[in-house]
Amino acid sequence: MLHPLHDIIKSIQPVDISLEPAAQAHLDDLTKPLGSLGRLEELAMRLYCIQGGNRPLAADPARIYTVAGDHGVSLEGVSPFPQEVTRQMVMNFLNNGAGINVLCNTVGCEQFVVDAGSCGGAYPEHPRLIQRKIGAGTANLAKGPAMSREHCEQAVMLGIDLARMAHESGCRTVGTGEMGISNTTPSTALYCAYLGIDPADITGPGAGITPEGVVRKTDIIRTGLAVNSKAVDSGDTLDILAALGGYEIATLTGLILGGAYYRMAVLVDGFISTAAWVAAWKLCPAVADYSFFSHASAETGHKAALKMLGIKPLHDLGLRLGEGTGAALTLFLLRSAAAIFNDMATFSTAGVAGSEIV
Amino acid sequence: MLHPLHDIIKSIQPVDISLEPAAQAHLDDLTKPLGSLGRLEELAMRLYCIQGGNRPLAADPARIYTVAGDHGVSLEGVSPFPQEVTRQMVMNFLNNGAGINVLCNTVGCEQFVVDAGSCGGAYPEHPRLIQRKIGAGTANLAKGPAMSREHCEQAVMLGIDLARMAHESGCRTVGTGEMGISNTTPSTALYCAYLGIDPADITGPGAGITPEGVVRKTDIIRTGLAVNSKAVDSGDTLDILAALGGYEIATLTGLILGGAYYRMAVLVDGFISTAAWVAAWKLCPAVADYSFFSHASAETGHKAALKMLGIKPLHDLGLRLGEGTGAALTLFLLRSAAAIFNDMATFSTAGVAGSEIV
Repeated sequence: MLHPLHDIIKSIQPVDISLEPAAQAHLDDLTKPLGSLGRLEELAMRLYCIQGGNRPLAADPARIYTVAGDHGVSLEGVSPFPQEVTRQMVMNFLNNGAGINVLCNTVGCEQFVVDAGSCGGAYPEHPRLIQRKIGAGTANLAKGPAMSREHCEQAVMLGIDLARMAHESGCRTVGTGEMGISNTTPSTALYCAYLGIDPADITGPGAGITPEGVVRKTDIIRTGLAVNSKAVDSGDTLDILAALGGYEIATLTGLILGGAYYRMAVLVDGFISTAAWVAAWKLCPAVADYSFFSHASAETGHKAALKMLGIKPLHDLGLRLGEGTGAALTLFLLRSAAAIFNDMATFSTAGVAGSEIV
Repeated sequence: MLHPLHDIIKSIQPVDISLEPAAQAHLDDLTKPLGSLGRLEELAMRLYCIQGGNRPLAADPARIYTVAGDHGVSLEGVSPFPQEVTRQMVMNFLNNGAGINVLCNTVGCEQFVVDAGSCGGAYPEHPRLIQRKIGAGTANLAKGPAMSREHCEQAVMLGIDLARMAHESGCRTVGTGEMGISNTTPSTALYCAYLGIDPADITGPGAGITPEGVVRKTDIIRTGLAVNSKAVDSGDTLDILAALGGYEIATLTGLILGGAYYRMAVLVDGFISTAAWVAAWKLCPAVADYSFFSHASAETGHKAALKMLGIKPLHDLGLRLGEGTGAALTLFLLRSAAAIFNDMATFSTAGVAGSEIV
């Protein structure tokens, strides 16, 4: 049984960093120059602490949730795609035709699709579809709050429940993914509200609007921040998430909290997922211990936001698709890091001479 | 039957870029915003041209050759590891204990170990070991040429033969790997000679020497360039490779040429492999069409050299192990790119609406 949200947040524990010296000693005994596996060693160290010093390390099984939601702000023409594409893409996910399907298949990772708040009614039943619609699209954030506080908390709790399901299925890693036409707009607004960034500094073309469209989108985000100034000025993380976020974004905030609660590795995807992550981190800074940042999105502002947060993402491949595609690619690095830690020979057992100072 | 070296070089063909519009049209029809898979799309496009427009694209089967060689310059104390570690690591590779073994196993890739020029005699026979020793370590490049021109050409031909073997086994991708205590020293000297870089600008700690050691190593490289000025000033690629390179480096130069000759994708690993690549590229610029640069090494100077060459590597993970470890990680990206191209749905078949201008 899940506890109410505040109890869950309170019970998320930082990882036990007293385990680090043992992990470091093992990494340093592997047959390679000290530190020469770079960030793979950093990933292995983090996994070791997340998994309580138990060996072997495991990145698998892993599951990516691609969470769908629609956005009232679509009415403002902030995306080149019509809103019905959210629903069409949900069907594409279920038919294995999307980028995330191909990459999950390539890396060997489960994918579930979650309807947290797309427009329209129920979808046909499907074994990989979780239908938990909280609302049929948010309200227009340029006119008022996108969600009620209650709906926002429901979405966060849904995300925690998704983490629970992954945990109960034995997953060691969960990845965040999303689908929601126009959702770079609420995400950009969240970065602005949480990190004090001006919209002009991070608003970008999303799925591909024109430079004039970016100017208009910037104005709409500025309007949204002004219209929702009560929430923004309150500094209350959930009020801000309700006012400017979306059903899929708040669900991912919960998935990140839940991943940490259930002591799983959390693969954070790109621009939208990182916005959801900032909300989770504001609610509970310890989520940082469980989080792996997959990639630097090509979306304007992601690198700037990551830099402000002191985060160096693991890939920089110009991706800007979302769905969890960056998380899927990065699962391979996490798996590689675990394998290095588990399976490499040590200097003593392999009969390899160690380093001398030169 | 292999042709002599110059015939092979002459018959390497650039890829047919007239195939690009067809590949681009297909990429643009996949259910995603235009270009939103970033460098995965670039990789798919390159594979499509390498593979002559045949579908499906294939990165697999793939094979990494980890080529071993020793270096007379080890006598100058340029590495923290004693020279016998090259041999010990060859045994470690055969016993599956090294980083490259673990990563090849994780990604699903064959690895062969090649003795092109390590010190000592023959190794015990092993199904993954190719014993083609050209010399038992090079001469000291700080005192004269590391190799004779004849031995250097033998090593290049060995590499081409390794590519032939991979091709005849059905490989679509070959990766470069190496093991050779002290081999950042000849590699750095090669960058200096080929690209006109001053040793002080790119000499680094290799496997982990002290700052004082780096100063000494820089002096030794400077001495090596002066002692071998006749070769350096000649501008003859093979004379420079013979004077400053090593058996494993020249073999990788041949592997890269051979990969292009047999129209395979070539995964270039890190600092040493890129030095071998520069020689291959000087001999035949068309190898660039077949080459994928795995990662930016943590070794000082790799990023500088890549930047001079206009190359943006695919990973930046602080790796500096060699062996082919970066190539193994990057095979996963190449495989992912092929899968995206082959398996994603198109807008028309998936019933997803396309982009509108906003």
